[in-house]
Amino acid sequence: MITGKNYLGNVLSSTNAVTFKTFNPRTNLENEIVYSEASDIEIEKAVELASQAFKIFKSISGVKKSEFLNEIANEIEALGDDLLQVYCSESGLTKNRALNERSRTIFQLRTFADLVKEGSWVGATIESADLNRQPIPKVDLRKMLVPLGPVVVFGASNFPLAYSTAGGDTAAALAAGCPVIVKSHPMQTGTGELVASAIINAASTTGMPNGVFSNLNSRGIEVGIKLVKHPQVKAVGFTGSIGGGRALYDIASQRHEPIPVFAEMGSINPVVILPEAIKQKGNEWAKTYASSITLGSGQFCTNPGLLFGVKGDDLSNFVQVLSEEIVKIEPTCMLHPKIVGAYESGKAKIQDQPGVHTVGSFDKNIASNYGRQTIVTVEGANFLTNATLHQEVFGPFSMVVQCENSEQLEEIIVRLEGQLTGTVLAEKGELEKYKKVVSALQNRVGRIIFNGVPTGVEVCDAMVHGGPYPASTDSRFTAVGANSIMRWVRPFSFQSWPDASLPNELKNENSLEILRYVDGKQTKDKL
Amino acid sequence: MITGKNYLGNVLSSTNAVTFKTFNPRTNLENEIVYSEASDIEIEKAVELASQAFKIFKSISGVKKSEFLNEIANEIEALGDDLLQVYCSESGLTKNRALNERSRTIFQLRTFADLVKEGSWVGATIESADLNRQPIPKVDLRKMLVPLGPVVVFGASNFPLAYSTAGGDTAAALAAGCPVIVKSHPMQTGTGELVASAIINAASTTGMPNGVFSNLNSRGIEVGIKLVKHPQVKAVGFTGSIGGGRALYDIASQRHEPIPVFAEMGSINPVVILPEAIKQKGNEWAKTYASSITLGSGQFCTNPGLLFGVKGDDLSNFVQVLSEEIVKIEPTCMLHPKIVGAYESGKAKIQDQPGVHTVGSFDKNIASNYGRQTIVTVEGANFLTNATLHQEVFGPFSMVVQCENSEQLEEIIVRLEGQLTGTVLAEKGELEKYKKVVSALQNRVGRIIFNGVPTGVEVCDAMVHGGPYPASTDSRFTAVGANSIMRWVRPFSFQSWPDASLPNELKNENSLEILRYVDGKQTKDKL
Repeated sequence: MITGKNYLGNVLSSTNAVTFKTFNPRTNLENEIVYSEASDIEIEKAVELASQAFKIFKSISGVKKSEFLNEIANEIEALGDDLLQVYCSESGLTKNRALNERSRTIFQLRTFADLVKEGSWVGATIESADLNRQPIPKVDLRKMLVPLGPVVVFGASNFPLAYSTAGGDTAAALAAGCPVIVKSHPMQTGTGELVASAIINAASTTGMPNGVFSNLNSRGIEVGIKLVKHPQVKAVGFTGSIGGGRALYDIASQRHEPIPVFAEMGSINPVVILPEAIKQKGNEWAKTYASSITLGSGQFCTNPGLLFGVKGDDLSNFVQVLSEEIVKIEPTCMLHPKIVGAYESGKAKIQDQPGVHTVGSFDKNIASNYGRQTIVTVEGANFLTNATLHQEVFGPFSMVVQCENSEQLEEIIVRLEGQLTGTVLAEKGELEKYKKVVSALQNRVGRIIFNGVPTGVEVCDAMVHGGPYPASTDSRFTAVGANSIMRWVRPFSFQSWPDASLPNELKNENSLEILRYVDGKQTKDKL
Repeated sequence: MITGKNYLGNVLSSTNAVTFKTFNPRTNLENEIVYSEASDIEIEKAVELASQAFKIFKSISGVKKSEFLNEIANEIEALGDDLLQVYCSESGLTKNRALNERSRTIFQLRTFADLVKEGSWVGATIESADLNRQPIPKVDLRKMLVPLGPVVVFGASNFPLAYSTAGGDTAAALAAGCPVIVKSHPMQTGTGELVASAIINAASTTGMPNGVFSNLNSRGIEVGIKLVKHPQVKAVGFTGSIGGGRALYDIASQRHEPIPVFAEMGSINPVVILPEAIKQKGNEWAKTYASSITLGSGQFCTNPGLLFGVKGDDLSNFVQVLSEEIVKIEPTCMLHPKIVGAYESGKAKIQDQPGVHTVGSFDKNIASNYGRQTIVTVEGANFLTNATLHQEVFGPFSMVVQCENSEQLEEIIVRLEGQLTGTVLAEKGELEKYKKVVSALQNRVGRIIFNGVPTGVEVCDAMVHGGPYPASTDSRFTAVGANSIMRWVRPFSFQSWPDASLPNELKNENSLEILRYVDGKQTKDKL
């Protein structure tokens, strides 16, 4: 049952007069439940509880943490249809999408559970003492990764489960040993509360310290700002717009003690269609891309918003087929009237720029909250000189940039802002022939795709979800995959520390049987 | 031969009317050579060359990079006594110290050479495709670490070799595949130019692209600021004061595209002397710490500037012995008259605070540029409420904080700012008995030492040199040891990429024979 309250650790609380409701974009009506925004006192309480919990949670065993993470997954499964129903009523997304996203969320939790149960992820590194070394003896040094402290996670509207309350950021931070305070998304506060209840139940069942998790409701941006400014908060995870992510990054970097913000933000995911590919498979690619551009109403961070080709009959044919195909697709509901509004105004701003031609646009009568897919074209020269055309339009929209030649194509790629992904569509020999273009594209992205679409993010060790700014605020980390745990930890070194007082990961006996680097060699042996 | 010019890639250049000289603190005279500060045009040229060089250098093989790094080490050795002499004349440090630091610098270069020659450091991770997977096929994904782009390194005055021109930051960045532009330290510009010539020669001998390294002279802070603001600069390494490091961090984080700054800054390296340790070995520890506090005139970032004990006869005795011992030590020359000036005024500021007592101070007649070692004491209550007492005094100075009891000690530790190191002096059972104090100290430091001194930084895999702010701007990285390469790289993922076009690290055949993670297993096997 949804209460509309905040979780301050395991206590439900609502002391604030500021309340709000969520919205169902399918019915175009507000949902019934009234949510209470977290007050200053509630924010303070949640952070204080997290700080206290950190003292215990930071050195809890990997086995215990894995029980906690697996139990969160079990509790989410146990929410059953209630969760799916609330999810759909607050996002306009389909039940099928809800099922897929729930599976992914559970998979992520169980992946981190396995990682910390096995335990080698801490990178235990031991250099043993050499008291006879000249000119000075060598001391015993033992290093491992330790958690940063309380982490604030901002829920993402386009992934109410997988990137939100118990999503990748939260799962990674808890796995690392960091207590988490979630700033729930205003559009999906009910979904957030249900998932929060699952985490709170799991924490209680598995004996975690109170305060290891809190969930704070918010109508606007104030709760998040206060959290990021709080001295006891040590890191921030965010998925959303460039404006939102950059604002949090700025606040965090201007603190007396700056803290890391990992914000996964905008991306228009450029696609380069090389001449032979467009000649041989232009029609096929046009159909494939019509699907990718409209998938989930274009509300994916990996949506392909920019397609580059070299001018000519083949490109003209591709544009025509793409424009025809895209309007055949049935539009779908967007997340919120605000998102539809931002989509329509962002699109109109682009369409108004000099040299931009709208070549395909869904124009039949549809419900007001549905996203009308649109394709525009522009010349390379216009694109190069007009920064407005480089801005993301979040929704089922894509722009085909018609370049004069491969030199102009390369120049454009060099000047692109950072992106999550880049895609190259090529036939035999073209990767080699357009080496400079491909090399320039690699400098601007976190993941590069050959003959495919950027939508679809495989959750695995080899995935990079992140990239040069503004794709993310720190390209040195990924937001997806087991390595995303690295955002929330720091290396820590013990010098000449007595064996009995070391963490188990670093003791001579290696009772955890983890893989360690001992005097330059990888081993599971004891010392 | 020192020319006084800037290296813009392999070309010596001096077009600026702004010139300056370095200073010999032993003779109290300016050195003869006139240095030309880098002009705006020279800065622009160096960055442009680095950007061009990056296109080639980013994918040069590990074997070639290791030849380059080893050749830098050879060239530095070949500079022979000329380098040692200039080093001493610009720093006031001894020839013995110069020899030790040169050894460390060469060791660091050769360590990174070995790392990149072996090659497994890139963390190659492969998840192979599974076209039969339900509900959707699994794509082939291959990930490795790639360099960020041109890196700016600021030389540190207290380590003219090991943390400067060819020091740890430069060695790590070049090993990563990032071109480096050094902003040479104004106090050691001649040392910087000689080392830069070694790097330039090595680059030429081993066929590196022009622009892989540049060395820019500066009289003040302007050259550094311009470099950090430059859009083509992608990361910054700095070792120095909190004021300097924070200013660069602020500039970098306010750019349109924020870039990572790894600044290793201030630390007062707290030492906790537990009751039994002070009772049983107080005299011994007092003598040991008198040496550590005055080592190199206290000009180490790991100098112990704060000693904590619980009030009583044992602590009083410790303070007395420490005060007697410290004045027996012969003072040594500090780096520059400015450093001596800052030391004396910083010390005086602390001595003027309420409750601070000077208990030992070298008061014999010595040369003006020598650092006069000083010990002061203060009550725990005063320390808790006076933020001025938490500030670093760079030089041979330490403050003994006399706490009322272990509760006050814990409270003080919790409130300390971030530190590079923390030290615990304890006898049997005390680590367990003062668990909360030790746990609180761990939260504030990057390295914790048992029954030793913080001075002396072992260059090895298990070392952490870094820590919570303001010890460094990003505690997630270390500035010392092979892992410091992680500051300058980002993960990058190839999806469905043709084998022939992949980097060798990710090709099926694994011709480099590196250790890779393939479908969840560590292996050197080919696919």
